[in-house]
Amino acid sequence: VVDRPDLSSFIFPAIVDRGEVVVAIGTAGASPVLARRLRERIESLVPARIGELAALMSRYRCRVAAIKSTISPRLFWQRVIDGPIADLALSGRSREAEGALARAIETAGRGRRESETGTVFLVGAGPGDPDLLTLRALQVLQDADIVFYDELVAAGVLERARRDAERVFVGKRRGAPGIGQGEINRKLVQAAHAGRRVVRLKGGDPFVFGRGGEELEALRAAGVPVVVVPGVTAALGCAAEAGLPLTYRSEASRVTFVTAQQAKGAAPIDWSALADRTTTVVIYMGLAEAETVRDGLIAAGRAPSTPAAVLARGTRPDAQSAVGRLDELPALAAAVGEGPALLVVGNVVARSTPWLAEAARAAADVQDAA
Amino acid sequence: VVDRPDLSSFIFPAIVDRGEVVVAIGTAGASPVLARRLRERIESLVPARIGELAALMSRYRCRVAAIKSTISPRLFWQRVIDGPIADLALSGRSREAEGALARAIETAGRGRRESETGTVFLVGAGPGDPDLLTLRALQVLQDADIVFYDELVAAGVLERARRDAERVFVGKRRGAPGIGQGEINRKLVQAAHAGRRVVRLKGGDPFVFGRGGEELEALRAAGVPVVVVPGVTAALGCAAEAGLPLTYRSEASRVTFVTAQQAKGAAPIDWSALADRTTTVVIYMGLAEAETVRDGLIAAGRAPSTPAAVLARGTRPDAQSAVGRLDELPALAAAVGEGPALLVVGNVVARSTPWLAEAARAAADVQDAA
Repeated sequence: VVDRPDLSSFIFPAIVDRGEVVVAIGTAGASPVLARRLRERIESLVPARIGELAALMSRYRCRVAAIKSTISPRLFWQRVIDGPIADLALSGRSREAEGALARAIETAGRGRRESETGTVFLVGAGPGDPDLLTLRALQVLQDADIVFYDELVAAGVLERARRDAERVFVGKRRGAPGIGQGEINRKLVQAAHAGRRVVRLKGGDPFVFGRGGEELEALRAAGVPVVVVPGVTAALGCAAEAGLPLTYRSEASRVTFVTAQQAKGAAPIDWSALADRTTTVVIYMGLAEAETVRDGLIAAGRAPSTPAAVLARGTRPDAQSAVGRLDELPALAAAVGEGPALLVVGNVVARSTPWLAEAARAAADVQDAA
Repeated sequence: VVDRPDLSSFIFPAIVDRGEVVVAIGTAGASPVLARRLRERIESLVPARIGELAALMSRYRCRVAAIKSTISPRLFWQRVIDGPIADLALSGRSREAEGALARAIETAGRGRRESETGTVFLVGAGPGDPDLLTLRALQVLQDADIVFYDELVAAGVLERARRDAERVFVGKRRGAPGIGQGEINRKLVQAAHAGRRVVRLKGGDPFVFGRGGEELEALRAAGVPVVVVPGVTAALGCAAEAGLPLTYRSEASRVTFVTAQQAKGAAPIDWSALADRTTTVVIYMGLAEAETVRDGLIAAGRAPSTPAAVLARGTRPDAQSAVGRLDELPALAAAVGEGPALLVVGNVVARSTPWLAEAARAAADVQDAA
């Protein structure tokens, strides 16, 4: 122990253990509770796979020390830790990380630097409550040089980014056209090619109605390293808040996420596939389409008395919901105000939190009697 | 040092020093550079005056231990740390902090005896990687007195719980029957009635095939306060890892989660609802049912050449996947080994990460030509 010789007899009641990497927290016996609370904070910021990264670095230590080049081993390792090699290792892609490290050593030995393209992280921002970010998302936000975000990302989430990260809005404002997917893709590629660590924050999960797939492909095509960090999609966040189980044994044996906003030129929504009584249907971005949804599902054979809910701004401070029957969906949608909202249709709605569900239960009774 | 006796001979090249509070970071010699980088991160989140807070708590330790009340010293100190007393101390108003602490001890000593029912948290443990826990889930785990978990919860996630929380396994072991849902419900209610802070950890999200709905109802019926903390369900975690967008504009306009393991007495799975080419189908717990899934989907009209993937132990260190065509599903399932696994069927599989997707892309070409 270098700095504090007395540490060898120090008591560490709280340990963050990541294999080769260990963080020990001590309070000189003053307060184990305080030590644990501190540990919780540190836990959230130390990546789970940092031990694997340390092990990888350990294996290549001698080879790096032997590099005949102007670059010092310390500088070399700093670049590894701050660059795509660490990004790959920390996201579990250890074979790729090792390959990239071996190439970087070879390149450094020839006196050149690997091209400095930064990594782009496509990150799920979750449903709104900043505490519903994943630990990985927080880590990545804390390391970001630049954050691209849109209108579905809650302000509290954006605040969790590194204080001096640049923030760029790429969403749609009311009454104004958005900047377009092609332009967003170009901005992401450009920032990465400038060597910056880029976070693309998307409401919910990047791969559920987030057009994350298109961004992933554009970045791959440009040779930019990409890591996808999943998030709690709105349906899960809102369901948890409303106490509304999306599946329920034989009563709801499947759940379908569908969007009412179709891409241009797409076929109209095939509601018939959602006729099954045991399918819970969650409609994203459906507030303005409540009539279409109601008509489509009833025409497909869902009972007009099927319990239905509208969950608006779920997990945010101004969350609001309305519960009733499928045939009342437009009225329910009109009752909750604006902002991101989900429509949920299915018998499980009648099981949601009592103060939500009274109306729905009555509706279900009607349906069962029918 | 309690848990890791080897720490006494551990080298800590980086120290965060706040007087009575010390955080030591070690990497077993693997990388001092990594340890220092970690120290920078930790420095930024350990309050400057935390040593003063620890010293204050230390001075009042015996008086708090002597409080005659139902409140435990641990709970008392937790409230201090999370409340205005700590805020005062950390902002340098130490005299006010000390006065407030003295008053809080006096008030607690007059506290009436009131048996308090503990809260039960139904918590989504995410897909496996502990960094995919939400911040809220981590907070709740760090405060838990007792944690009930099952076989779908990864070991690394369970390790994030408070060190001295009791851990109770309530899942199924291979070849042995589980303890049954009714018995789990009873255990949860009993622990809450004993005044404990209870976490019920469930793989993925509690409301997606987790039987969280049933536990919620049992707890409500017993008058136990319940909070549901959502999680990243396996489909989202595995899709992010595989670079597999679950929706993709007009190509995949909806996604359905279904389980191949039906509850007793449930109707057989209605595959016809999954025939639509633009529906991505994710089958949970489907490894043993790959033949049924293949036959059902093909009989319903999905092309045998539809791209399909099996993602096993996704986001865990031993994750493994196999990609091919729907008609090869049983072979793909046989290739990945045991453990939790998802089957994914749909054209988007052909868009997944290149090293996964070559086979799938070939399959999609065949399908498009057909």
